Amino acid sequence: MAKKKLSEAEESRGKYRSDLVKDDVLLKLKNIGLKIVQDLEDGKWPSLDIPVRTTKNIIYDPNLRQYVLGPKTSERTVGNIRHLRPFAQLVWVAKFAKQLLTNGKTSTLRDTYYVALGEGIDFESQDESDEIIMELESLIRCPREDMNIFPEERASIYGDLVIEYTVPGFRGQRVDLSAHPDGYSIGPALTTSEFVRCGAEQVFVIEKGAVFSRFVEERADKKFKALLIHTAGQSPRNCRKLIRRLREELNLPVYIFTDADPYGVHIASVLIHGSALSAHIREINVPDAIWAGVYATDITKYKLPAMRLTEADFKRLNELEQDPRYTVDPWRREVQYFGKIKRKAELEAFSRYGLEFIVRDFLPQRLAELQKR
Amino acid sequence: MAKKKLSEAEESRGKYRSDLVKDDVLLKLKNIGLKIVQDLEDGKWPSLDIPVRTTKNIIYDPNLRQYVLGPKTSERTVGNIRHLRPFAQLVWVAKFAKQLLTNGKTSTLRDTYYVALGEGIDFESQDESDEIIMELESLIRCPREDMNIFPEERASIYGDLVIEYTVPGFRGQRVDLSAHPDGYSIGPALTTSEFVRCGAEQVFVIEKGAVFSRFVEERADKKFKALLIHTAGQSPRNCRKLIRRLREELNLPVYIFTDADPYGVHIASVLIHGSALSAHIREINVPDAIWAGVYATDITKYKLPAMRLTEADFKRLNELEQDPRYTVDPWRREVQYFGKIKRKAELEAFSRYGLEFIVRDFLPQRLAELQKR
Repeated sequence: MAKKKLSEAEESRGKYRSDLVKDDVLLKLKNIGLKIVQDLEDGKWPSLDIPVRTTKNIIYDPNLRQYVLGPKTSERTVGNIRHLRPFAQLVWVAKFAKQLLTNGKTSTLRDTYYVALGEGIDFESQDESDEIIMELESLIRCPREDMNIFPEERASIYGDLVIEYTVPGFRGQRVDLSAHPDGYSIGPALTTSEFVRCGAEQVFVIEKGAVFSRFVEERADKKFKALLIHTAGQSPRNCRKLIRRLREELNLPVYIFTDADPYGVHIASVLIHGSALSAHIREINVPDAIWAGVYATDITKYKLPAMRLTEADFKRLNELEQDPRYTVDPWRREVQYFGKIKRKAELEAFSRYGLEFIVRDFLPQRLAELQKR
Repeated sequence: MAKKKLSEAEESRGKYRSDLVKDDVLLKLKNIGLKIVQDLEDGKWPSLDIPVRTTKNIIYDPNLRQYVLGPKTSERTVGNIRHLRPFAQLVWVAKFAKQLLTNGKTSTLRDTYYVALGEGIDFESQDESDEIIMELESLIRCPREDMNIFPEERASIYGDLVIEYTVPGFRGQRVDLSAHPDGYSIGPALTTSEFVRCGAEQVFVIEKGAVFSRFVEERADKKFKALLIHTAGQSPRNCRKLIRRLREELNLPVYIFTDADPYGVHIASVLIHGSALSAHIREINVPDAIWAGVYATDITKYKLPAMRLTEADFKRLNELEQDPRYTVDPWRREVQYFGKIKRKAELEAFSRYGLEFIVRDFLPQRLAELQKR
């Protein structure tokens, strides 16, 4: 399966996946402009129907296994003086996104805010420009990364995967991601690259840098034919997108390893189910990914050194219990078990059995359990 | 100069710099053991003289331009029942460090704590094991990275430098750090690598990921023949060590770019002068590095969008004013100017003049100013 996908990718040289995404976004941006021009030619106040992103319009879709926006939209019209300002702001952001894409440049939420200030666009604060960028995302149903607006944070990757860049200055160049054992930062160039050749058969996503280094040192990449991804806490959006592509384009199973605490559960869940905040876009979560631990029940099973849950942990646990994403196992079971033992443990806690234990013993045991399901 | 250093490195294949460091640390660790054995054979309680790391024994050395430990030591002896526990802990950490080095494994402060727990070493918390690790650092005057205990955080690097790994599994393999434009994570393998060939003539150290990406995109690496390093905030200790090696072994000038706020000043200062916390080790700061902005005075000069200093910023400013490291310019001038304008600005603020401005205009202007000094 993976092989087939890859040879297709190789055959389509000159027209990369990222080129198609770019063409699609540019078309959608152009259509916003055409709608405005058409309204003017028809003698009407230009208006746009903007999807409502308040909690009332966010629905949990059990089939998609993620939050999605409901059908409600709100008309933004130049005929309403209170709408004029956000209307103009939205048009400016669309213009800026077009410039980024046509010039092959990238930006961040913050950088976009400063460029806007410089061009005399009146944003009170970065919060306001962030909000308008998310409106544009919901309007064209594309994540901002597809408009070349990237997160500041960087995850990293290591393993048997050869990529080909599509960004200006590097287009067509290839890199083997198994050459540098400390890992390759996942920025704009890696996110938009093509997968050319992959010897890995699965993906391990790891919350902690120390455990990523441990997996490299114990050669988990070789022993388990795995790509290793270090998220450094909550995975940045472009990292989630890259993992989704590894799943979809290369058909690789994805396993997520987090600390055994409510925040670790949240990290795994956001990667799998998406967040309520990004209910308006559908392409940055990985519904098929599997949370592989560390579970609350592992604290007991492996007698891991554990700490008491804090007030903040209990608060988050309560929130998790209200959330429809946590009504099935292992989520429900583990959230309940945290409440029972009132303790948490870190990924590194396996080191109580020596540095090698996590890769030599825990990892094959857990994979065998999950594959039996 | 750089060329000469490099060919020497190439000639000394098989005996890497990191091998020499390792031999040195192993010898120092062995000497601790020999001292204990000798004391026992002499019929004495084993004892060790441990440098005192309290503020009373930390002195600012204006020649070294960093904080250093004074001459005070404190005797730790098995003859005192209250010393027994930390004595045993210290011996265990020394044994663990020896194992790491001889087995070619790395660890972190946290991982070391868990291994200790597993081996029945009685640490109340990670704070206690961290403290003992720092005692061992001060005793053998080596940073813990030389004992293969690395920070969890990862900076990254990009540019015209070919390195050769010395870690097991990759020993002798080379990688060109200009192939992946998102940057290479700086972990144990990169930190301990040899520099084989370098086309760069200077180093730009950058606090922010967005600005690192901007520098790559605007080809600052090519235009200014520069290695680009992204610290992601305060630079991790092994990143500081790597920058020091780029300075010492390749004779490259180092320029540091931070936000124009008290925290940015602190980031630059720690990299240059070291921190009081690491006064007991001397090899992880870069005394010759140059803070290149963004200065408080740049906020006025470049009319940068700026925010009010917060209470926390003012508190930090007051601390900076007490610190002997800030009694010379540009530090004194800029700290005073922050107090005057009561405002701060981010590196990204230059984007008010367009995304290209920072590399096309600001960067050559600043370098010209600094080279005139």
